[in-house]
Amino acid sequence: MRLRLACLGFGNVGRALVTMLAEKERDLRERYDLEVCYTGAFTRSAGGWSAPEGITPAALAASGWPTSGALPAGAQPFAGDALAFAATCPADALIEITTLNPQSGLPAIDHVRAALNAGRHVVTANKGPIAYAYRELRALAAEHGVALRFESTVMDGTPIFSMSEASLPATRIEGFRGPMNGTSNYVLGRMARGESLEEAVAGAQKIGIAEADPSNDLEGWDAAVKATVVANVLMGADLRPGDVVRDGLGAEAMRQAHAALPPGHALKQLAVVERDGDAVRARVELAALPLSNVFATLVPGETALLLHTDTMRDLTLIEGDGGPGQTAFGIVADLVNIARGRWTV
Amino acid sequence: MRLRLACLGFGNVGRALVTMLAEKERDLRERYDLEVCYTGAFTRSAGGWSAPEGITPAALAASGWPTSGALPAGAQPFAGDALAFAATCPADALIEITTLNPQSGLPAIDHVRAALNAGRHVVTANKGPIAYAYRELRALAAEHGVALRFESTVMDGTPIFSMSEASLPATRIEGFRGPMNGTSNYVLGRMARGESLEEAVAGAQKIGIAEADPSNDLEGWDAAVKATVVANVLMGADLRPGDVVRDGLGAEAMRQAHAALPPGHALKQLAVVERDGDAVRARVELAALPLSNVFATLVPGETALLLHTDTMRDLTLIEGDGGPGQTAFGIVADLVNIARGRWTV
Repeated sequence: MRLRLACLGFGNVGRALVTMLAEKERDLRERYDLEVCYTGAFTRSAGGWSAPEGITPAALAASGWPTSGALPAGAQPFAGDALAFAATCPADALIEITTLNPQSGLPAIDHVRAALNAGRHVVTANKGPIAYAYRELRALAAEHGVALRFESTVMDGTPIFSMSEASLPATRIEGFRGPMNGTSNYVLGRMARGESLEEAVAGAQKIGIAEADPSNDLEGWDAAVKATVVANVLMGADLRPGDVVRDGLGAEAMRQAHAALPPGHALKQLAVVERDGDAVRARVELAALPLSNVFATLVPGETALLLHTDTMRDLTLIEGDGGPGQTAFGIVADLVNIARGRWTV
Repeated sequence: MRLRLACLGFGNVGRALVTMLAEKERDLRERYDLEVCYTGAFTRSAGGWSAPEGITPAALAASGWPTSGALPAGAQPFAGDALAFAATCPADALIEITTLNPQSGLPAIDHVRAALNAGRHVVTANKGPIAYAYRELRALAAEHGVALRFESTVMDGTPIFSMSEASLPATRIEGFRGPMNGTSNYVLGRMARGESLEEAVAGAQKIGIAEADPSNDLEGWDAAVKATVVANVLMGADLRPGDVVRDGLGAEAMRQAHAALPPGHALKQLAVVERDGDAVRARVELAALPLSNVFATLVPGETALLLHTDTMRDLTLIEGDGGPGQTAFGIVADLVNIARGRWTV
């Protein structure tokens, strides 16, 4: 199968993806009969281009776009905006990797909807569309006979969704918990080593895992969005991130909890989701965990998810030292599963 | 798809499997279009039966066989031995859950070979055939156009193999490590709580996780067999359990290592497998891990595997409190993947 990709957003993940697709080109072709090319890309700052004949990942990586400023050979400038790009760029699959808006999921939802309506597969690493519009978009994908995949929305490319689909058949997920927000737990980890919250946040910003305004991470919005995605997809819930209880979070709460932490404990920001009769309840909390708790051993950069199931009891996945490369890998895995005709998550 | 099962071996796992298949009967039918029935079963002590019309899991569970001594309604005694049962019992799939012989893999290899030669799918929770004859049996399955699946050979039904197949495409496994033998690590955990090795072994025997002679566990044979399975399947190695270095193991070594353990450390029996150029090197060792190591937090009954990959870097799977139910679940997952036409591992 030849998949023509249109890539919306082209930051660290976009660059890691094109590099990985170039490196794995032969493996993808020989083992999965999958050949990919880029027929377009778009960023808010650099604008977009399209190339109906397709540009190989290796050629796109070599072009240095968008950093270089020059379009890849064979590309023409794309005249419209991001939504027009999603709807009209000639491609078989849209890769949605724009920046998350954790309070609304927009405009990424519109991008995904436009691509599905145009009969394109969608692979999104942007959590917004899945957190805010999963049921609608899933139905739309089914209506158009295309795939909607999103492995990289939670814990980078850690195989939460494809593992559940492929490896946990006939299984009811009763709940889950985990330190799902890397930035908060990076900051808490640095505080445990003696840094102030400000120093730890500055350190997180320096290595590129915290934004200029870290409140989405520290106040639990990012974890709430992730918890919503996992609850809605794996537990059949219909939550929105605003339904996730986020009490006692944020910078001041972290300072106080750190000061009050009993010896032999580690502070973690955890997402906790449980069934309560027919309902699903979700919260993000600061938890003082004994050092013997598996989550307490995670170092900055690691994230984890413990699934409670009715078949395998507790199953925990830990990602070591996540980053854009692993997010890119989740997108590659989604593309391979599209090529294999495995469309449902 | 209707799958007629012949079950060879019928201990704790066999009972857990029939119970789970009965409980999940509707889910399997509605979600995976899979209907299973038993057309035969065989144990060394109780002998065997066949029932060409098929017996539902619920009816078989209700019959109380083999404990009850009476054959299920509709079954006739099977006259031959285990090998004849594997070769001739009328079925679509053989479930191989006899007891492991860790030094040779026999006679389970012969059972699996006979079933594949008779054109039957095979699902084995017995590690022997995969540790000692994976390449041959995989080729035989391909020749006959049937499936050979074995999720439950390592860490019960923890989805090591199906996750790798479904979720880690185009990925090279560079190595892995983990406390893969539950019994040794149960014993070491009890010793850390103040019991003698003898008391801890007796405790493990009492709850049914150690055999009368625990040497296969304590001397690293069980872990060596598991490491061989994972190395051969996921890393393309061609090891045999005897190739796995097992220095400094066994009861006396455990006593000495426990006595010499530095404060702030936990003793674990680990399997460690690494690439060394084109070769794959495997060993089982007693390791003194700092308490901040994720493996050090595992309590008796938990097992874990850390995969080093070129795409996701480090990915760890932890199984909480494993047992026959989870082994049965891995068999159910294998059967579902057979029904879905996902035959390769």
